[in-house]
Amino acid sequence: MVNPVLVDVTRGALTESRHRGMIAVTDAAGGVVYAAGDIDAAVFPRSACKAIQALPLVESGAADTYGFGQREIALAASSHSGEDAHIALAAEMLERARRGVADLECGAHWSSQQPVLIHQARTRQMPDALCNNCSGKHAGFVCACCHQGIDPKGYTGYDHPLQAQIREAMEDVTGAIVGADVCGTDGCNIPTYAVPLKALARGFARMATGEGLSPERARAARRILDAAMAEPWYVAGTGRACTALMSLAPGRIYAKTGAEGVFCAALPEQGLGIALKCEDGTTRAAEAMVAAVFARLLSDDVELAGRLSERADVRLRNWNGTEVGRVRAVLP
Amino acid sequence: MVNPVLVDVTRGALTESRHRGMIAVTDAAGGVVYAAGDIDAAVFPRSACKAIQALPLVESGAADTYGFGQREIALAASSHSGEDAHIALAAEMLERARRGVADLECGAHWSSQQPVLIHQARTRQMPDALCNNCSGKHAGFVCACCHQGIDPKGYTGYDHPLQAQIREAMEDVTGAIVGADVCGTDGCNIPTYAVPLKALARGFARMATGEGLSPERARAARRILDAAMAEPWYVAGTGRACTALMSLAPGRIYAKTGAEGVFCAALPEQGLGIALKCEDGTTRAAEAMVAAVFARLLSDDVELAGRLSERADVRLRNWNGTEVGRVRAVLP
Repeated sequence: MVNPVLVDVTRGALTESRHRGMIAVTDAAGGVVYAAGDIDAAVFPRSACKAIQALPLVESGAADTYGFGQREIALAASSHSGEDAHIALAAEMLERARRGVADLECGAHWSSQQPVLIHQARTRQMPDALCNNCSGKHAGFVCACCHQGIDPKGYTGYDHPLQAQIREAMEDVTGAIVGADVCGTDGCNIPTYAVPLKALARGFARMATGEGLSPERARAARRILDAAMAEPWYVAGTGRACTALMSLAPGRIYAKTGAEGVFCAALPEQGLGIALKCEDGTTRAAEAMVAAVFARLLSDDVELAGRLSERADVRLRNWNGTEVGRVRAVLP
Repeated sequence: MVNPVLVDVTRGALTESRHRGMIAVTDAAGGVVYAAGDIDAAVFPRSACKAIQALPLVESGAADTYGFGQREIALAASSHSGEDAHIALAAEMLERARRGVADLECGAHWSSQQPVLIHQARTRQMPDALCNNCSGKHAGFVCACCHQGIDPKGYTGYDHPLQAQIREAMEDVTGAIVGADVCGTDGCNIPTYAVPLKALARGFARMATGEGLSPERARAARRILDAAMAEPWYVAGTGRACTALMSLAPGRIYAKTGAEGVFCAALPEQGLGIALKCEDGTTRAAEAMVAAVFARLLSDDVELAGRLSERADVRLRNWNGTEVGRVRAVLP
């Protein structure tokens, strides 16, 4: 199946580039509300499923034991930009469990966001693991281990008890079987599992509604999504799409991006889950796609839908500020 | 026409993303030696045609008057990384014509290359127009104007005499008609014209061989390609694809990238021109595609073809250095 073109990139009057992809919107029972492209295709959700990966932290009671509020839980399900307050909060989470940066197994990298990278370059010699966009998630992993009396050493490995807990949560929430045959290694070194796009969408409908989940899991899931929606800056950072989208409609939109053009999202009021992937892995296209889907599903709120539509049809400006083209979602 | 998948991005044992695109390889008469996808599609070559845009600088005698050697000519046809020596040489070119940074109309931006950006952030408050990846080209534009007694002011405008000279050169070299109907504005503010991919390939076969061009133009074209191949660091910079590809086989490979996943290239010994575009505009895919095409066309040189093939099948490593996947050209 050839996936449809979902985003056009224009320059002047012509199309310069185009992005294909697939989008699944379902309810918690798996009923498909909107589909484009091959929604049965197995997709690595990458960081877009961090809310699911944060379930053991909350379900185990670690988050309560260490006194984590919404900011800490949001950061545990984040891909943050490495701004100072992100780094400080990740360090503080580790300190609550009497652990530190040396326990993180995510590796180190400079911020991918240019203004943050410039600040980092001017204030530090080299980045450490706390700067990694996944350091909040990894701090949460270390805390989940410590609280349960599990040695966190090797917590990124497929066979570590924490990863078994995450696998169980992924299977329960999405209904898909995940194992070594669909396993890849993520940028931060943990296993990532390819899951049919439709199952990811249904999983996020369940995360938002609790339908089909145990009461304990449903409470933990809703607590994680609520934390992200209440503290969207801690999920991404200044100027980032996830932060901006969730800030547009507090408590009504959940959105989390992942590498290679993925989004997992939910509209709790509608009871809907959304999963999408740009076939070629491009973030600009995935961001336009998710904004266009939200605009369509929230069309009853004309003002909100208008703001979302602006994010689905972005003006490109050159170094002189001249408008030269657009990145525009063209959903069927 | 649906363009074929030309690059697979894998993670573990699975394909994670895929890139479609089109490739044209022709001789100077337009005979197609290899084709994939829609090679009649009009494509904005963006920076990949900077060698053509540099023709007025050389043909007018400006390059000789100002004493430009191969480094200056390579920089005039470059998208440089903004390393110190790139910036210094662009400034020196302007000084030869008694002009300066204030005459540049390209706008300013930080380097797109992370190590260079870190250096820039630590050594300057803000980037100026000399840091723009196109500053060498624009310095060449200003020099071409000054030498011809043309006021450079407004040299980026469609109606400026310099842009008329560039349009004439584009039409003569590619055989395509270019005008306002296929015109967009480039990142550095000059007009960019969409040209059928096949015509771009033929144009670069002509640039490399001189066939079909006037003797003066043929000499200028060869002088520009020779300069780029002799000084490939000045065409791009440290660790960049164009620099690396031309360094692999001095004088035998010409390659120049452009934004939105384009390459224009030539193999002077074979008399072939190459033009390609990744449909979705992604650089990683265009780089794998051009390396794979070179490897195929240069297969007689087993060692060189082997090195080129390595660049067409790149190992992806995560922040811990673990191999997690590949970006692999899969040409039909």
